[in-house]
Amino acid sequence: MTTTLQDCRALDAQDPLAPLRSHFALPPGVIYLDGNSLGVAPKAAAARVADVVTREWGTDLIKSWNTASWFDLPQRLGNQLAPLIGAGKDEVVCTDSTSINLYKVLSAALNIAREDSPARKRIVSERSNFPTDLYIAEGLCKERGLELVLVEPEEITAALTSDVAVLMLTHVNYRTGAMHDMAAITAAAHAQGILCVWDLAHSAGAVPVDLNGAGADFSIGCGYKYLNGGPGAPAFVWVHPRHASRFWQPLSGWWGHAAPFAFTPDYQPAPGITRYLCGTQPIISLSALQCGLDVFTAAQSLGGMAALRTKSLALTDLFIQLVEERCTGHGLGLATPRDHAQRGSQVCLTRDEGAGVNGQGSGAYAIVQALIARGVIGDFRKGDGGTGRHKDILRFGFTPLYLGFEDVWNAVEHLRQVLESGEWRKPEFNQTHAVT
Amino acid sequence: MTTTLQDCRALDAQDPLAPLRSHFALPPGVIYLDGNSLGVAPKAAAARVADVVTREWGTDLIKSWNTASWFDLPQRLGNQLAPLIGAGKDEVVCTDSTSINLYKVLSAALNIAREDSPARKRIVSERSNFPTDLYIAEGLCKERGLELVLVEPEEITAALTSDVAVLMLTHVNYRTGAMHDMAAITAAAHAQGILCVWDLAHSAGAVPVDLNGAGADFSIGCGYKYLNGGPGAPAFVWVHPRHASRFWQPLSGWWGHAAPFAFTPDYQPAPGITRYLCGTQPIISLSALQCGLDVFTAAQSLGGMAALRTKSLALTDLFIQLVEERCTGHGLGLATPRDHAQRGSQVCLTRDEGAGVNGQGSGAYAIVQALIARGVIGDFRKGDGGTGRHKDILRFGFTPLYLGFEDVWNAVEHLRQVLESGEWRKPEFNQTHAVT
Repeated sequence: MTTTLQDCRALDAQDPLAPLRSHFALPPGVIYLDGNSLGVAPKAAAARVADVVTREWGTDLIKSWNTASWFDLPQRLGNQLAPLIGAGKDEVVCTDSTSINLYKVLSAALNIAREDSPARKRIVSERSNFPTDLYIAEGLCKERGLELVLVEPEEITAALTSDVAVLMLTHVNYRTGAMHDMAAITAAAHAQGILCVWDLAHSAGAVPVDLNGAGADFSIGCGYKYLNGGPGAPAFVWVHPRHASRFWQPLSGWWGHAAPFAFTPDYQPAPGITRYLCGTQPIISLSALQCGLDVFTAAQSLGGMAALRTKSLALTDLFIQLVEERCTGHGLGLATPRDHAQRGSQVCLTRDEGAGVNGQGSGAYAIVQALIARGVIGDFRKGDGGTGRHKDILRFGFTPLYLGFEDVWNAVEHLRQVLESGEWRKPEFNQTHAVT
Repeated sequence: MTTTLQDCRALDAQDPLAPLRSHFALPPGVIYLDGNSLGVAPKAAAARVADVVTREWGTDLIKSWNTASWFDLPQRLGNQLAPLIGAGKDEVVCTDSTSINLYKVLSAALNIAREDSPARKRIVSERSNFPTDLYIAEGLCKERGLELVLVEPEEITAALTSDVAVLMLTHVNYRTGAMHDMAAITAAAHAQGILCVWDLAHSAGAVPVDLNGAGADFSIGCGYKYLNGGPGAPAFVWVHPRHASRFWQPLSGWWGHAAPFAFTPDYQPAPGITRYLCGTQPIISLSALQCGLDVFTAAQSLGGMAALRTKSLALTDLFIQLVEERCTGHGLGLATPRDHAQRGSQVCLTRDEGAGVNGQGSGAYAIVQALIARGVIGDFRKGDGGTGRHKDILRFGFTPLYLGFEDVWNAVEHLRQVLESGEWRKPEFNQTHAVT
């Protein structure tokens, strides 16, 4: 029996997480399926940021380093985030960007791995990892005379050889939404003496993560996607306590010093995760991130990440089902795994090459543009044009904090209309430009 | 003839820059002499940040990367800042923290210097440079097997030997306000084949700087001091065009890629200064920095940095003169050079060891606390307790954008009363805690 709009409304009426939607400033007329790229603004953010600008900065000025606890904001937010990713107290700091935090942990991981086994000269990663991760690893390899080895997901285990120092993976793939088994892969790497760095950019706040449970070594992640911290919000970094005090990371700035206000000329790293801080942090942006984390704190009493995961899977299952029921015959496929254990909180549809206007390209970009014009915000990721394994992708993120089942119905209904009407063929939807 | 309060008021009445004060949200009852640490909020910042949060993020969401030009904000702000530091168009980006930008340019400078002359194994800097600069250099030296040589200011020229790769200096000293002759020192370094990295943390927006005129090689600086960009505002980085495209810097993230949205697995650096970007930037904090830069743009029609410099020197001259006329007999000295060519935009007073309560310490910390209690905000920097050349310091920054001559009179009058009444001896002013 097919699912109806009434069924979706009934699911919303029973949804215990429905009240969380009221925490967000959702723009009217929009179904926002891009929280995997930039999360929606929490309603509290406007007032919080205004208070930071007008009172903490404007009135209290320099005193706020102490009175508003600006100085330990990275640690406080890290502690607030920790339960979402299976980290302990004082194991996480919110700071800098994901790319910069990756440089810190990858440097530290290489130092540790190579001190223990100098013959290990490789970093292994996935060819379709988010590019900035690969760029940072490439830079470090170039600097240190190491080798970056890129493999497909099914080749990872075989690539874990005795010359590998570090395995660097993104937990949930940004293009496909496919999720790795963190515990199993970490165990396989450790069995070969290899350290694991996990990028949680598409996991933190999206799926339950248990870094300590998986015995992971290092982790980083993004503040502005599922954590709803605002555009370019500071990122986070976690290091397992067994490694945290073992080496400095190379970005050894004063915020990571054991006594930053002693102003000594030599660097003495703070114990633990604090040494992964570097310079002064953008307090206004950090404060907005706190509003994003506050919603997860509020979600605790409604079941926390476990309840969010249940709803996320129900939303993505429903989207897949409705697309397959209602949008057939238009060259769409599914890039995201059906298996719950392998799925993040997004669904990525493929579209066949040659299905575009006049048989050119896939038309996926135009379909996404036509949906955006209707207020259904997803995004497009380009494939390899039929030369390899990656088709063009229509990417849709499902944030259970603010999306409901009727939203899913309506999104698919818009997609159906865009496809059946041929609306996506209009020239204005086929002019490509920079996409984010 | 001594200067009077009436003289100061007359100076304010004639001050062509006086209208700029109206751009700032100065808290009532405060004389703010700490703009060298955290600049005052521009009035425009509250509305600008509110617009970014509620409209750009809240309503337009992901579209704002294009429609609000978030993506090229680092370059746009860099171009707005460039005239203040003698940089050309497309030579500056605003991004990351000062410490992280220093890591980028120092890495690039070492790569260039050592490719040309592999025997150069030293970085020379000043022992009293801002500590985070020394920590970053120490980390790079440790990583690459190089040596960091720290000297006193008068020893710099003699230290420029043929084994030196890079001279790394802060233009205006954070403790004393002493300013180096950038052109002369750069020329002396270049004569020995040494590259120069200049930290403008206490210079940008405080004194006229001419990086291209001085032939400098690399420069970085701070957004939250004299540029009034907000707490922890993103910093900036400049690279001379002759170097900018020669090497990657090691923080090779996607924002520095030639085609960030091509999502290619290999790193191709963008031409020029854009390759000094790394990860996604904190847009809300960057937007506040723009408000700080806008005031300098407004100052252009009133004479720009040259007029600001004239007023800054008049303010600091007046402060020195009034302290020496009205606060004698209390163990105060002058750490900042009297010579205009050697002075930044701050005045640092020393206080003799043994002049504190019961002959303990200098009492400088307590005097600063007593002044803060009266609304005169300066700060304290600890000396070496009589073991070396650095006395305790009372540090006062003078920002000509929002300070007047009567402010200087009143600040000195408060200092006089604090000293003469013995008010600073009160126990509550003598309890030390973290100072920023």
